Amino acid sequence: MPPALLLSEFLKQKFPNSDRTHLLTSVLPTLLNSIISVAQCLRDSQDIQTAGSQNTSGDQQLNVDLTTNEIIHAAIRTCPSIISASSEEDEGENAVQHNSGVSPHDSNQEQYSVAFDPLDGSSIIPANWSVGTIIGIWDGVSALNQRAASKQIAAILGVLGPRTTAIVAIRLPSSDSSLCFEVGLSSSTQDILVIRENVQFKRVEGVKTRYFAPANLRAAAQDAAYKKLIDHFIEKEYTLRYSGGLVPDVYHAFVKGHGVYVSPVTAKSKAKLRVLYEVAPIALIVECAGGRAVDPATGEDILVKEVRDVDDRSGLVCGTREEVDMVVRTLRGE
Amino acid sequence: MPPALLLSEFLKQKFPNSDRTHLLTSVLPTLLNSIISVAQCLRDSQDIQTAGSQNTSGDQQLNVDLTTNEIIHAAIRTCPSIISASSEEDEGENAVQHNSGVSPHDSNQEQYSVAFDPLDGSSIIPANWSVGTIIGIWDGVSALNQRAASKQIAAILGVLGPRTTAIVAIRLPSSDSSLCFEVGLSSSTQDILVIRENVQFKRVEGVKTRYFAPANLRAAAQDAAYKKLIDHFIEKEYTLRYSGGLVPDVYHAFVKGHGVYVSPVTAKSKAKLRVLYEVAPIALIVECAGGRAVDPATGEDILVKEVRDVDDRSGLVCGTREEVDMVVRTLRGE
Repeated sequence: MPPALLLSEFLKQKFPNSDRTHLLTSVLPTLLNSIISVAQCLRDSQDIQTAGSQNTSGDQQLNVDLTTNEIIHAAIRTCPSIISASSEEDEGENAVQHNSGVSPHDSNQEQYSVAFDPLDGSSIIPANWSVGTIIGIWDGVSALNQRAASKQIAAILGVLGPRTTAIVAIRLPSSDSSLCFEVGLSSSTQDILVIRENVQFKRVEGVKTRYFAPANLRAAAQDAAYKKLIDHFIEKEYTLRYSGGLVPDVYHAFVKGHGVYVSPVTAKSKAKLRVLYEVAPIALIVECAGGRAVDPATGEDILVKEVRDVDDRSGLVCGTREEVDMVVRTLRGE
Repeated sequence: MPPALLLSEFLKQKFPNSDRTHLLTSVLPTLLNSIISVAQCLRDSQDIQTAGSQNTSGDQQLNVDLTTNEIIHAAIRTCPSIISASSEEDEGENAVQHNSGVSPHDSNQEQYSVAFDPLDGSSIIPANWSVGTIIGIWDGVSALNQRAASKQIAAILGVLGPRTTAIVAIRLPSSDSSLCFEVGLSSSTQDILVIRENVQFKRVEGVKTRYFAPANLRAAAQDAAYKKLIDHFIEKEYTLRYSGGLVPDVYHAFVKGHGVYVSPVTAKSKAKLRVLYEVAPIALIVECAGGRAVDPATGEDILVKEVRDVDDRSGLVCGTREEVDMVVRTLRGE
């Protein structure tokens, strides 16, 4: 294996003459570095407790939810090109109040909006399972009422586990091609190393072990289509990997090069995932890795729709293209 | 919440006049500290790769398997009361070659044997999911051909995740009571803090969410009893948590106070788990937490049998007592 490249070198090679200097040298490295701080915060938090409040999703907030939210906001305030930001722990999208000495960009320069979930997977934090950070980066001053497919130009999926790793996707409107790669984040050196330069799903024919992650399996008790899908996975001897953390569950498929994640919407189980903070960033990364991310309720690609409200919700089926198609057909009773 | 106690203070309170000075002040803290080093090693290993060799279980060895194995052996060599040791990465049980200056205990003093799996969960390490370390501590100079129920006197289940945590169980033959507690391990302070003084399964009646972790689900394709069990879990709306890592999967139940882990043995799927390095230490911790750990092939408690060979294998059903009984009955077609 050749020695891992530094992120800065890698991006210079991939975008030699880019007009996205701030995205590549400020926004992405700053946000990735903030994930190192989030990991450090979690590592030092042996007394995980509820903060006694709820976020706008109605989840109990943990003390670490609030601390990690502030870590990422603090990083954002140092980036002059990030004009607005919103997070799962906030009330809506807000203009960034930059640090003193940081002059926010005007409309002649790069301008971005960042939407993030600082710490996804609260229910498995007490058991010390891997959790994650999800970040979407949008072209322009707001993420709302935009064409997601073209305006969400980059996304980060960070796993806070034994190590700290992240998958980054970049898809610029000016370019035909997209990029999906994995980085390792080290708290001791602060280096961001590209540990896999091209994250891509394998073709189904080349796959030995097929993985599935069925979210909200309890819904299968009342939903015949979901139960039929589960029976299909078992009968065809798929391997189960389901931690209950959205980030690690989706990340697993990127690393193995195969897999399908299913968060269904049924009569008794409403759409649960936040489009802006969870589903849309994951959908971009899945597409940049050659996979598909679909709303099981409509069968449409997630990124076809605009995000109208920070609280928009959706189901999610994503991963290897052929598997996603099979799952959506089965869930829709086709 | 009162401030967390240091391990040393906690053990002094619990065993005020113990004749197990070395176990309490040398063996346990040394092994727990070695788990901090294992976590540090993993955190610094962005280039997880296979070492090109296989261990005696036939698993591909990763470079981190070998490094973490040596970290724990190095810790053991500093403990005069640990006379023999074996690990999943070794060939059998061996006499400890102590560091110069360390005089091994003779039979008038405390003598222990340690059996461990330094890094369980190789298949999910690349995806950066939580993995674990399992350690059993046996009274006397060998772990083999001993009455497991009385001779395995302590065990440690360490989770290498966003934090580093461990559950410790102690059951001394001289005492009627056993102890099961959780510690947080900090690499920055090297402190071992008792974050939960009493880890116990709840009574089923008091449980809101019931968790299940079905290992080797593919076996359900050919085994009607296992498929029936899975259907039962779905129908009764149990919540699925299955990472595929034995340590985090079992640990989850301890933290939630409820759950059942099922690694079945079927006609096509042989007993897979190593009794000495995996099943026996977990069984001790489960029993000390008020749960049950059973061999699904015989329906007997795991700790009833002696470990004859370091390669002895078994299935495992463990967790909340009533759930374990239900699972074993279902798997045995009763």
